[in-house]
Amino acid sequence: MSSFFGNKIKISIFGQSHSKAIGVTIDGLPAGTPIDFDELQEFLNRRAPGQNEFSTKRKEEDKPEFVSGIVGNTTCGAPLTALIYNKNQISNDYKNIMDIPRPSHADFTAQVKYGGFQDVAGGGHFSGRLTAPLCVAGGIAKQILKQQGIEVFSHISSIKNIKDDAFDSVNPDNQKLQEVINKPFPVLNDLKGDLMKQTIINAKNELDSVGGTVECMITGIKAGIGNPNFDGLENRISSIIFGIPAVKGIEFGNGFGSTLLFGSENNDEYYYQDDNIVTKTNNCGGILGGISNGMPIVFKVALKPTPSIAKEQNSVSFKEKQNTKLVIKGRHDPCIVLRAVPCVEAAAAVAILDLI
Amino acid sequence: MSSFFGNKIKISIFGQSHSKAIGVTIDGLPAGTPIDFDELQEFLNRRAPGQNEFSTKRKEEDKPEFVSGIVGNTTCGAPLTALIYNKNQISNDYKNIMDIPRPSHADFTAQVKYGGFQDVAGGGHFSGRLTAPLCVAGGIAKQILKQQGIEVFSHISSIKNIKDDAFDSVNPDNQKLQEVINKPFPVLNDLKGDLMKQTIINAKNELDSVGGTVECMITGIKAGIGNPNFDGLENRISSIIFGIPAVKGIEFGNGFGSTLLFGSENNDEYYYQDDNIVTKTNNCGGILGGISNGMPIVFKVALKPTPSIAKEQNSVSFKEKQNTKLVIKGRHDPCIVLRAVPCVEAAAAVAILDLI
Amino acid sequence: MSSFFGNKIKISIFGQSHSKAIGVTIDGLPAGTPIDFDELQEFLNRRAPGQNEFSTKRKEEDKPEFVSGIVGNTTCGAPLTALIYNKNQISNDYKNIMDIPRPSHADFTAQVKYGGFQDVAGGGHFSGRLTAPLCVAGGIAKQILKQQGIEVFSHISSIKNIKDDAFDSVNPDNQKLQEVINKPFPVLNDLKGDLMKQTIINAKNELDSVGGTVECMITGIKAGIGNPNFDGLENRISSIIFGIPAVKGIEFGNGFGSTLLFGSENNDEYYYQDDNIVTKTNNCGGILGGISNGMPIVFKVALKPTPSIAKEQNSVSFKEKQNTKLVIKGRHDPCIVLRAVPCVEAAAAVAILDLI
Amino acid sequence: MSSFFGNKIKISIFGQSHSKAIGVTIDGLPAGTPIDFDELQEFLNRRAPGQNEFSTKRKEEDKPEFVSGIVGNTTCGAPLTALIYNKNQISNDYKNIMDIPRPSHADFTAQVKYGGFQDVAGGGHFSGRLTAPLCVAGGIAKQILKQQGIEVFSHISSIKNIKDDAFDSVNPDNQKLQEVINKPFPVLNDLKGDLMKQTIINAKNELDSVGGTVECMITGIKAGIGNPNFDGLENRISSIIFGIPAVKGIEFGNGFGSTLLFGSENNDEYYYQDDNIVTKTNNCGGILGGISNGMPIVFKVALKPTPSIAKEQNSVSFKEKQNTKLVIKGRHDPCIVLRAVPCVEAAAAVAILDLI
Repeated sequence: MSSFFGNKIKISIFGQSHSKAIGVTIDGLPAGTPIDFDELQEFLNRRAPGQNEFSTKRKEEDKPEFVSGIVGNTTCGAPLTALIYNKNQISNDYKNIMDIPRPSHADFTAQVKYGGFQDVAGGGHFSGRLTAPLCVAGGIAKQILKQQGIEVFSHISSIKNIKDDAFDSVNPDNQKLQEVINKPFPVLNDLKGDLMKQTIINAKNELDSVGGTVECMITGIKAGIGNPNFDGLENRISSIIFGIPAVKGIEFGNGFGSTLLFGSENNDEYYYQDDNIVTKTNNCGGILGGISNGMPIVFKVALKPTPSIAKEQNSVSFKEKQNTKLVIKGRHDPCIVLRAVPCVEAAAAVAILDLI
Repeated sequence: MSSFFGNKIKISIFGQSHSKAIGVTIDGLPAGTPIDFDELQEFLNRRAPGQNEFSTKRKEEDKPEFVSGIVGNTTCGAPLTALIYNKNQISNDYKNIMDIPRPSHADFTAQVKYGGFQDVAGGGHFSGRLTAPLCVAGGIAKQILKQQGIEVFSHISSIKNIKDDAFDSVNPDNQKLQEVINKPFPVLNDLKGDLMKQTIINAKNELDSVGGTVECMITGIKAGIGNPNFDGLENRISSIIFGIPAVKGIEFGNGFGSTLLFGSENNDEYYYQDDNIVTKTNNCGGILGGISNGMPIVFKVALKPTPSIAKEQNSVSFKEKQNTKLVIKGRHDPCIVLRAVPCVEAAAAVAILDLI
Repeated sequence: MSSFFGNKIKISIFGQSHSKAIGVTIDGLPAGTPIDFDELQEFLNRRAPGQNEFSTKRKEEDKPEFVSGIVGNTTCGAPLTALIYNKNQISNDYKNIMDIPRPSHADFTAQVKYGGFQDVAGGGHFSGRLTAPLCVAGGIAKQILKQQGIEVFSHISSIKNIKDDAFDSVNPDNQKLQEVINKPFPVLNDLKGDLMKQTIINAKNELDSVGGTVECMITGIKAGIGNPNFDGLENRISSIIFGIPAVKGIEFGNGFGSTLLFGSENNDEYYYQDDNIVTKTNNCGGILGGISNGMPIVFKVALKPTPSIAKEQNSVSFKEKQNTKLVIKGRHDPCIVLRAVPCVEAAAAVAILDLI
Repeated sequence: MSSFFGNKIKISIFGQSHSKAIGVTIDGLPAGTPIDFDELQEFLNRRAPGQNEFSTKRKEEDKPEFVSGIVGNTTCGAPLTALIYNKNQISNDYKNIMDIPRPSHADFTAQVKYGGFQDVAGGGHFSGRLTAPLCVAGGIAKQILKQQGIEVFSHISSIKNIKDDAFDSVNPDNQKLQEVINKPFPVLNDLKGDLMKQTIINAKNELDSVGGTVECMITGIKAGIGNPNFDGLENRISSIIFGIPAVKGIEFGNGFGSTLLFGSENNDEYYYQDDNIVTKTNNCGGILGGISNGMPIVFKVALKPTPSIAKEQNSVSFKEKQNTKLVIKGRHDPCIVLRAVPCVEAAAAVAILDLI
């Protein structure tokens, strides 16, 4: 079912942009796991809206209330449910959407699928706001993984045509990586970061939007995790990543870039480093046959430009049954990529925790 | 579980490259569906090895034997199981693999996961040969979909840096598309096709390999199919597509290309075409919020260069615990892309049949 | 995962007896379904504690708060989540359980499985209180089923050795059945009901408890629903019914009774009633080969006597590592059967809604 | 899907009574597990038809052919598929079934569900013959469990009103239990066994059939296995057991019997036996809150009398749209219970292997 994910660890996301609350249930967490709620809140703050000029002005604290699954600060084996109450809804912004679908938004497909009964306010169940409970699940998953030496890092890899440097996926330095993801604008190369910011602001000023890519790396994962065929690391990770709104592509390791190379260039040769077998390059993104090879797992995600732009667009009126013009009002991110960075981390963490 | 896929329609793939047989079970097919076995065989022939200079010399007829689920030429509601007996195995080709893993192949990860008990002959369960039963399932799915007006088409979109033209995903012409996929080398632009062939042959002569991309389009799918969050069209399709060996990336519609555009460029504006609401462009690949919008579904898949190359490579010896050189013998495709084309069609057809 | 059930309709139950809240998420409900909240509350009241002398004195209103999935009074296609806040917890009643497990309660198995981290207060996640959110899901399922002509009825079939009459599963009268389940003590034969009540009160006075059986019937279900093998009506219904605490057995139709008959006695012969094929008897409980035959579905559930009794019992002390005596304090039902009646209805309704 | 079962271990059963072959795929078996094929064959022989006067005269060797998943005598981590070719089909026995459904058989429900396209020969996919591949899976599961000290035993618990003694579920003696299940007519009390045999033969001579119960016990399972709510031992075991044709009821431990007791009688009190906490009685069947308590798991299954009897019965003709008489020809077991014994063991073994 659409809002459920996982096998050993099962998560269920619920809520709409303007419903009383949004939330998540996580079942299968090992009992007796301490949760650092401050660390979790810091992680959630990376995604929360209203923090800077690159994101929507909607202010939400995103402070989860845990109603079950926790005794003291520790998981108790029962499903953990966290709620985030919606507070800063302004629903009259969304009056026209029932009639005039916003191009490249889910308005039209929701209208067809749910026959006009969908919750249209704020994007309803399709809203990026639903990534908040995903981040609750992912933030907890990250903490559990870290206790096992597995860490998940993401950064903005590109905004429009401005590219950040790539993660070092052969010899990662976890401490430096942590510093990168702690930045308010998480890029390796801050000069490129400045150009990206300017690109976003320019787009905003033009009443337009831009997209970009997020690179994610998982370190500390030992060889042998995953499965062949339909249940491999790539299948599972892609399956949850496409649950993040605006994602339109994913590639592992060299991905589409590997199609431009010869096999002799793309193959990752093995050698002994002390007693460990490692590879000289990591074009495969740490995954062969759906199974981890002990190198970091690396993948890149494509996020389309935010479809909600302030510029006038062409659309149709269901009621009038004719073409019409549309000007979208309301509060929107000119670029979703910055806020998607922790969401990618969260989704990856949930997928990995479910597999190991 | 790794070799199972689907919900309403469940498939289970089994077999190893050199086991007695490979096969597939499909459960959930509607009873009373006639199967055109000749058409199915033609589809399977598109994937079968040994047909031209671009693929391995291993000769297999890939003629499925149906042991259950069929009465006469018609499904009976019981699970359908088809076997393909392996005939042309030459197992002594694979002697060294247990000791020296082939770079970027699943040898190493299988060794770690299965502790040396994996079937190493011919790649075992990781072999591309397992796409034959996937094509049996997909070929049947294609026939059932076609009865409902839904068709699935794939072509070689690129080989290394040579690009074919793109499918017209706004106004597709099914008849022309069928002609394209019937070509022995399925490209839209045959001049580009000739360059691709030359690229493959050159790589082969250099004892090397090349990769490429496959574009897939699904026409005739009405709006409203799919789900939000983790169970959308993109989640489901990517989840099965990464089950095809060598796939390292997938993008829907404009995919990674959309990250280079402004929202105003990437958004697909609506207009009325007679009484239907359609879009002027199809940058979203026919999917919004995980749900079809009535336009063709389009996606592109990245296939890495075949890791099995004849060139000498560096690797390690498990036994000797030291670095060593490796020369792979045996019969291998210098480029897997051509044979992957029907596999992508098959996988997409199964995913769609499972969702509608 | 343990607290998830279903395929087309997925429910996820969360909460512990004394956590901040308990609740349920239901995904897959058709959009645009009106919910009668008063009717739902009436249904929930049938299960709520503290209403009479046969149930625990813990007073809970069991008034669900819907935080998502509803717009107005109508489902919107997004997952519906309902919370019931726990109010009347008295946690000091449960101090000793961590040390001395109550016989035939889940204390001991939870202790082993969760290593002492389980929420012990009030039975934690194992508490009968978790049937309240199940009843929210089931109450909604009942309403949706009723709109399709399918109704679910349950009554107390026996308390200890006192047996009620059986439902007429050949010619059911829905109106009369509704009257039965609306009774405060839902039995067909009120004289037997009085004996049952006396049996419960006697047991209570003896600081003891009693069990019994619940019979459930589903009318209006057409032939052809269900599946063979592992996914039939019996598999699905039993799979959810054993989620109700204290259930130790289930039988369909004549069940264990059919093992005492000859085939010629147990077989349900067909005949034409007007244009419909019906059976003269309903020993099969409306299910053949896992699939409904158009007759009412009937099954019976065995509920053991409440394990929490006030009488002194033998047990062990984990801490002291020795045998000890145990006297359970707190508020407990002397017989869970009465309150289990709507739970069985709820569980059956969810299972059927998931299958049709 | 109907013919699939399991989570960690997934099985897929395929085939019809008279299809070319029947079989099973098992995915998730640990690589490197040796299989004793002789022991497996002995187990399968316990179920095979045509061995004595109590079962159908259809002669099938039930000798599985393993086409994948095995290298040498050892699992290789890839899905294991075993086929049993059908040889002794006599299809003309079943001519009339398409028109006149046999009472209490799945003919009618299959006809409705599959619209007349179902494979009617020999019961098609609903045939008891499908328990042969279940026994292949279960026989392998039994071997793997035994390597971990877990054993599964079943015996005929009753035929009609003749009851065997019960397993000792407090202090089981595995060696004696093994002797019981190795008997051609597996009962504890052979005098009762003789009466049962006479009951079956009498029924056969009367052109009638009888049913009975099977008791199953799992020893050596440690405490803490299973889950609360919908994923406990009872849920999982019942979910697979109802996949055996003719099963109409299941009860764990004292089951329906516990409804006749006071709580003080039914509760299993704990005490220390050396350093282990055990119970004096085992009325709960080794399961509390869905989780094993370390005592043997015990359950009983009700099997209805074989619906295929030689006596004339009343039924209807679809074609003539009127009532008619039916005399069933063909080869049928007068009592399915004897052959169900290993099937119950097999199903339980698969369920347990999937959970531990």
